[in-house]
Amino acid sequence: MKALVYHGPGSKAWEDVPDPHIKAPTDAVVKVDTTTICGTDLHILKGDVPSVAEGRILGHEGVGTIVEVGASVQNHKVGDRVIIACISSCRVCVYCRSGNPSHCLADEGTSGLGWILGHLIDGTQAELVRIPFADSSLYALPEGVPDEAAILLSDILPTGFEMGVQYGAVKPGDTVAVVGAGPVGLAVMATAGLYGAAQVIAIDLDENRIEKARSVGATHGVSAGAADWKDQVLALTDGYGVDVAVEAVGIPATFRMCTDMVRPGGHVANVGVHGHPVELPLQDLWIANLTITTGLVNTTTLAMLLKLVKQEKLPVEAFVTHRFGFDQVLDAYATFGDAAATKALKVAIGH
Amino acid sequence: MKALVYHGPGSKAWEDVPDPHIKAPTDAVVKVDTTTICGTDLHILKGDVPSVAEGRILGHEGVGTIVEVGASVQNHKVGDRVIIACISSCRVCVYCRSGNPSHCLADEGTSGLGWILGHLIDGTQAELVRIPFADSSLYALPEGVPDEAAILLSDILPTGFEMGVQYGAVKPGDTVAVVGAGPVGLAVMATAGLYGAAQVIAIDLDENRIEKARSVGATHGVSAGAADWKDQVLALTDGYGVDVAVEAVGIPATFRMCTDMVRPGGHVANVGVHGHPVELPLQDLWIANLTITTGLVNTTTLAMLLKLVKQEKLPVEAFVTHRFGFDQVLDAYATFGDAAATKALKVAIGH
Repeated sequence: MKALVYHGPGSKAWEDVPDPHIKAPTDAVVKVDTTTICGTDLHILKGDVPSVAEGRILGHEGVGTIVEVGASVQNHKVGDRVIIACISSCRVCVYCRSGNPSHCLADEGTSGLGWILGHLIDGTQAELVRIPFADSSLYALPEGVPDEAAILLSDILPTGFEMGVQYGAVKPGDTVAVVGAGPVGLAVMATAGLYGAAQVIAIDLDENRIEKARSVGATHGVSAGAADWKDQVLALTDGYGVDVAVEAVGIPATFRMCTDMVRPGGHVANVGVHGHPVELPLQDLWIANLTITTGLVNTTTLAMLLKLVKQEKLPVEAFVTHRFGFDQVLDAYATFGDAAATKALKVAIGH
Repeated sequence: MKALVYHGPGSKAWEDVPDPHIKAPTDAVVKVDTTTICGTDLHILKGDVPSVAEGRILGHEGVGTIVEVGASVQNHKVGDRVIIACISSCRVCVYCRSGNPSHCLADEGTSGLGWILGHLIDGTQAELVRIPFADSSLYALPEGVPDEAAILLSDILPTGFEMGVQYGAVKPGDTVAVVGAGPVGLAVMATAGLYGAAQVIAIDLDENRIEKARSVGATHGVSAGAADWKDQVLALTDGYGVDVAVEAVGIPATFRMCTDMVRPGGHVANVGVHGHPVELPLQDLWIANLTITTGLVNTTTLAMLLKLVKQEKLPVEAFVTHRFGFDQVLDAYATFGDAAATKALKVAIGH
């Protein structure tokens, strides 16, 4: 088969590799119908994720058709169309049972599961992919849900909802500010209303992304480059700050924006992938009754969000901006990697 | 009357000052029967809390007898014995009504209430003290609760329970590590069992304090100075870390100990008063599904903890180590300020 193979920082190729096959009775092999690229893949290509070995097939998002199942797979059969969760999990270890399958301890020749696809085992930017613990790591794709909507359920919609809205403890009437209107930030904005957010403020440097944010649920936009950005945000509250500030960029400056604009008693939900430490001004914040959360998505809400997508309750059509064939995957990377110029959000890659 | 007056960094005196009187109809004046010193008072005397003006009477903990009430006070009358909450609050502003009276917005000539006693208005290290919003800021002291137990309810027991146990989301079976076995750290350990903590690990540099911790509820002690302190803690878990790590010191090194020993999916509850920023290693923690909390006590659990004290369910007798008359308040400060040598925890000051 063909696959997108990582050859060390800055180097990748769409090349011939051996087909994957069942290794454990709990495995399935899925023919990938649609995959996409995540900002995390760009981090890997920059060399920011040294745990990714050279020769690794990238990608952790996908929709496909099962072509082979192990002897103990109960819930899926050959020919089924499925969504691949970016989190592989056993659902029986102490972490899975306590609601944190992103820290699954099952043995896959890795130190646990969780995010292993396109990271510690071969991923979904390929014609075929082997999925461990298929019963718990795949979700049946219902009729009527297009691949370009379903692909958002592998990662970005659950990430935005779980790590932004749920961890941020959004409640009815809240003002929620989201720093970073990329795909995951937009996923936060698109799902904040599920828990009753009254105002959703999109904060970004890119006016195009702020406009996009308005189309998925943002009620207000603030330019992160404005000298008075914080005053603009506070003016949308009672003057004490937002109830929930969501960090969806992954750099110290945007994390600091969140702790600067959250009200006493409020929540800062970190969603961004960080490469560096941040300074936490505890000399000011120890007294502020804040809750700060971090985390990798658990995909425990994938089925719920899929139901909402099927019911057309989420603005999924706004996310995929570009489409490519598998043989154009390098073009897809170029387009996604230059989002400021191409205005790319999610790129769909498939047949 | 006599009172302990702050005269700028490093300077204090027990001196004659005018008696306080009712200023607003919601006020009460309380004759202080027993007061004590908090670590925060030492911070003030070091100059770490510049919002405290010279001439301020210090102290935010006290048990006393009401000698004067304003016209609109409903719940208390002259002669009643009361516990003074360290948080003054109106109970009707948006913060009070949402459970955060430590950020009360009521007007007292300060920018809100909350912790104002011995900070922004005159405090309890005095023979008399004026208490604003007496109905919500005072609690009736039941018969049979000695002053040396009741004084712990002004601040340290609610602080340990609310900011450590409740904000740390302690649940049955948890392993809870508390860094810092001073009075507030001990209050965390003394109340962690209320929510079912199975193991309570006291971590401190001082072996004497670790022994004290065992007497109030710690099941294990680890020396913070041991090179293998973290290994010792992990050995008490399944190897993945503690469920809840409580910071009860207030310096960057001890905060870092907490983020280093908490398990994925765990909680770090900051209780310590910090004077400097800390480094948060988000490059490692973004993926760890952590919840980090900060906060000033709300004293919303004061009445519940008082009930437990009255029922003799909390080890309150362990806290007061030294007793002084009002005219010995400077000796009390010397003893409390040199706790390493005197082994002081709480010092009771009264008639």
